[in-house]
Amino acid sequence: MHSFTDLVSQFEERFIASLPFPESPATIYEPCRYFLQLGGKRIRPVLCLMGNELFDEISEDAWHGAFGIELFHNFTLIHDDIMDKAPLRRGQPTIHTKYDLTAGILCGDVMNIYAYDELAKIKTALPQVLRVFNKTAIEVCEGQQLDMDFERRNDVGIDEYMHMIALKTSVLLACSLKIGALTSGAMGDNANKLYAFGINMGIAFQLQDDYLDAFGKTDLLGKQSGGDIIANKKTYLYLKAVENATAAQRKEIESLLQHSGADKVSAMLALFTATGADSQCRDAVAHYSKLAFDCLEDVAIPGKRKQPLMELANYLLVRDK
Amino acid sequence: MHSFTDLVSQFEERFIASLPFPESPATIYEPCRYFLQLGGKRIRPVLCLMGNELFDEISEDAWHGAFGIELFHNFTLIHDDIMDKAPLRRGQPTIHTKYDLTAGILCGDVMNIYAYDELAKIKTALPQVLRVFNKTAIEVCEGQQLDMDFERRNDVGIDEYMHMIALKTSVLLACSLKIGALTSGAMGDNANKLYAFGINMGIAFQLQDDYLDAFGKTDLLGKQSGGDIIANKKTYLYLKAVENATAAQRKEIESLLQHSGADKVSAMLALFTATGADSQCRDAVAHYSKLAFDCLEDVAIPGKRKQPLMELANYLLVRDK
Repeated sequence: MHSFTDLVSQFEERFIASLPFPESPATIYEPCRYFLQLGGKRIRPVLCLMGNELFDEISEDAWHGAFGIELFHNFTLIHDDIMDKAPLRRGQPTIHTKYDLTAGILCGDVMNIYAYDELAKIKTALPQVLRVFNKTAIEVCEGQQLDMDFERRNDVGIDEYMHMIALKTSVLLACSLKIGALTSGAMGDNANKLYAFGINMGIAFQLQDDYLDAFGKTDLLGKQSGGDIIANKKTYLYLKAVENATAAQRKEIESLLQHSGADKVSAMLALFTATGADSQCRDAVAHYSKLAFDCLEDVAIPGKRKQPLMELANYLLVRDK
Repeated sequence: MHSFTDLVSQFEERFIASLPFPESPATIYEPCRYFLQLGGKRIRPVLCLMGNELFDEISEDAWHGAFGIELFHNFTLIHDDIMDKAPLRRGQPTIHTKYDLTAGILCGDVMNIYAYDELAKIKTALPQVLRVFNKTAIEVCEGQQLDMDFERRNDVGIDEYMHMIALKTSVLLACSLKIGALTSGAMGDNANKLYAFGINMGIAFQLQDDYLDAFGKTDLLGKQSGGDIIANKKTYLYLKAVENATAAQRKEIESLLQHSGADKVSAMLALFTATGADSQCRDAVAHYSKLAFDCLEDVAIPGKRKQPLMELANYLLVRDK
């Protein structure tokens, strides 16, 4: 069994050493290499490797799965950055900023195809792998579309928000675990329980991310603290605050949306606390974390083998900054 | 055996009746449906069906191939329209114009994934199908990148141009035919000869397209006549004219690039003729057409079965407007 840190560095080394791109045309492949070498937490491919090692020694198929998933994830990041007009990713210029819009679109497109090409090398349970991957990939696109739609809407409900973050974040984590399981030969209930573990862990992670963006001290992810508030993002905290607010508080929230002064963040944080949104958010993180750990518990495998996944879940869910 | 016209209308009916998209989120799927219902010549999916029927009755697998290929082709058109800043496609607003950039990017992305989902339903020779499809899809992205690169370069050679149009146009025609063959159980030499037929037909078609854009009377494709000249596109005619030109003619060509007057088209056409580029272009069309028909001839199948493909190739290559 390998630890989380060990698998991250193994993955990093193998992945970067065996990027599938040829030299030419450099105008499309140089930006692809640039982006993939920016790093990242590599959580999704490591989940695939862990889902595989849960049942047996890590197989070649699991590595193909991990590579394919990481290529797919980066494709979505490259296109999301265009849609979000993001100048930076991991502190470095995004592809459409460093190169141009064409490079951003085409690098994403070709990376998605290379993801499929990597997955097509899988020998064990390929039809099942493609089924869950395609379903997931479609959901990730839908999630991004909903996220963009929500920016323009003022009537987003908590349920819709939960659905969106499940699509945008959770399903790919869950899919990674399931592909790991499928490529080890595990099917049925165990693969499905792992999938459910991933869904709940993803939701808890995203809600925690919302919470830390507002109340975290420094930020592990390199994002600006209070960034969601400054950008008027409709997070769990915001939506809950609006839902719970008195008429007067709602008016205050609405007027803060128009502000951009230095006190905007602290005023909004005070409202999150006054409306009880902050404690509800913490409760929701705890609730989905428990659901996640319960699902992992239910996987019919000796507890000892689950250690690396427990470790990763703890790393993701029990951080305080 | 079915005729070209018959297969086009069969495909059109089945494809539009069974589009794979759910209702929601409408913000992503409504534009997808809009775009796919704009029509188009449906040449690629029909090539897949014909490649299949060449060997046997059209199979369910061939239909999955045809659907997947048409979804993929439309994904590339949606993204190309963004990169080309094209306001219209088939006389109607492009997705990024009618909706927005986000819709354009995400509809293309999700359509590509639905293409893979359709192909994953294939039962006969799925690994071989995915191999040729992935290779082709990568090449199509590379071709589009080269096309965009060439717009900014003034030193594009004829060989580079031929390589670019092969990637951008021919490989998907060839791939469609090959997937048709593979899903009928045909492999090896026959599938490869069909692929080569598609490559040569595609090159001949694109060179013919260059020729007709300049010298065609009216335009079947709904494009502006002389549009390539007005847009300073580096077509076969242009590159050959530059290659053949005397110093004085080259100067004239270069000065015409700065013009936008009404006589720009006629002046450039005169240069295409004076340099012999026009007759070389016609010769090249004839050359690649012959190569194509020779490859088709070599497929080890009674000539009678090849009638629909001959008919389609004639339709594509022997048009005069």
